[in-house]
Amino acid sequence: MGLLADTEPIHILIDGQLHDQLPVLDRAIHYGDGLFETIRIVGGRPCQWQRHIDRLLLGAERLGIPLPDIDLLAAESAAVSGQQGTGVLKLILSRGPGGRGYAPPIPAKTRRLMLSYPAPSGQEDNRRAGVSVRYCQTPASINPVLAGLKHLNRLDSVLARAEWDDPKIAEGLMFDVTGALVGGTMSNVFLWDGQRLLTPPVDRAGIAGTVRGLTLELATRLGIACLVTRLDREALDQACGLFLTNSLIGVWPVRELAGRRFDLRRLPRELIDRIEQAASLPD
Amino acid sequence: MGLLADTEPIHILIDGQLHDQLPVLDRAIHYGDGLFETIRIVGGRPCQWQRHIDRLLLGAERLGIPLPDIDLLAAESAAVSGQQGTGVLKLILSRGPGGRGYAPPIPAKTRRLMLSYPAPSGQEDNRRAGVSVRYCQTPASINPVLAGLKHLNRLDSVLARAEWDDPKIAEGLMFDVTGALVGGTMSNVFLWDGQRLLTPPVDRAGIAGTVRGLTLELATRLGIACLVTRLDREALDQACGLFLTNSLIGVWPVRELAGRRFDLRRLPRELIDRIEQAASLPD
Repeated sequence: MGLLADTEPIHILIDGQLHDQLPVLDRAIHYGDGLFETIRIVGGRPCQWQRHIDRLLLGAERLGIPLPDIDLLAAESAAVSGQQGTGVLKLILSRGPGGRGYAPPIPAKTRRLMLSYPAPSGQEDNRRAGVSVRYCQTPASINPVLAGLKHLNRLDSVLARAEWDDPKIAEGLMFDVTGALVGGTMSNVFLWDGQRLLTPPVDRAGIAGTVRGLTLELATRLGIACLVTRLDREALDQACGLFLTNSLIGVWPVRELAGRRFDLRRLPRELIDRIEQAASLPD
Repeated sequence: MGLLADTEPIHILIDGQLHDQLPVLDRAIHYGDGLFETIRIVGGRPCQWQRHIDRLLLGAERLGIPLPDIDLLAAESAAVSGQQGTGVLKLILSRGPGGRGYAPPIPAKTRRLMLSYPAPSGQEDNRRAGVSVRYCQTPASINPVLAGLKHLNRLDSVLARAEWDDPKIAEGLMFDVTGALVGGTMSNVFLWDGQRLLTPPVDRAGIAGTVRGLTLELATRLGIACLVTRLDREALDQACGLFLTNSLIGVWPVRELAGRRFDLRRLPRELIDRIEQAASLPD
């Protein structure tokens, strides 16, 4: 992966203003008190906008963060995306300024941050040839009130991702302390048993990915049975294949998991093509 | 509690410079990727400095964040505290700037933020007369790798603290999803059964408070048995008293828990006095 090209943002807006500094009393800094969305930009437009906004709305409601005007968010996102062509839009909602202590200010003054980045490189290769994946030791945090949300408390994923630096390994799978599979550090995981899709619930840990939702919908539409159920190492050992999803990667088939190789031709190809197509479609 | 007086910081230093803005690419904003300490200032000097630094060191090691020079931290803390007289020093260590994605930059450029605040009001009343406490619905997150640390992922405490706004209620008790007592939203909790202290472990959830450590040491020195063990609602129902600790409050005896009243004279008074004395002693 290119270094500068992948990591340096091109445009930054804070509350609609060109600015690259955040006041130090912001609660995102002190408590991770906020939410984010990572959105694929194609042709200068955000993909799957409605799904991202729906999740953001749900998260804001759950955290009690006043949601900014949706039309304003859409307009600013469109402006930032339009300057990017192909790339990534990162949208952060913070509960805004706060005093010392956990109690949220009432009313909170929500801040919106928008950053656009160039497209990560190597995505097409991964989609076509599949990826190598490892197991992570770092457990995913269990908290039913926070589970499913894309909130800013992401230390479990950070520590899991820090477990390896081999660029040939694209992702790591995380479990909770009970041994339940949660997902990748930055992706949702789907197992394929030859006939059915299996994926972990996101009501105790993990994130309800937008492409996860898309996958469940498209599978149902294609008549493929989907089981959202507790999965463990044994379920992984028994799977005849697996793939990863998120809004930027679309679908990454898993070519190898901790030394075990998979035949990608056994995966449900039509479904994967349809997911990828939908995930890369600007609204 | 006074509003402005408690919440507005007086001095802010970022990496030793007077500055009140943080670059928007800082990983504390994006992932809560950092640690903090909240330190009591008495007579212009930080209290229990060594305990705070020890926890910070442990946290930095566990998160893989390069620790800044300890002497520099001490010098800057002393400078900020010296301008405050009596108050609160908040020290934040962030993993610093980062690109998109969870993988920490190697090497990370740790940032240090120091904020000093005036002393919160009403502390003496609470120490003397005790406090009212409630039960929280929001569960504490379970993650053995993060447990014990004062890291920046604090949404569980934020949501628990947002459950009430009655100023007569000083604190709320949190449990994990298994029903195990974890602590207060901002404090550790000790139960007194008439002969022994009981407190939850902090190896799956919760924070290893500096005054928690102090309490365990002083109790042992006074010949009071301490049991660090799993506690649930039933254990709370059976306790003949309880108290809360943190670095700012020292000790708050609990006068009332969810409608049940306690006789504060049954608590181990000598121990509480000694904890308070040590917690308010500048190094």
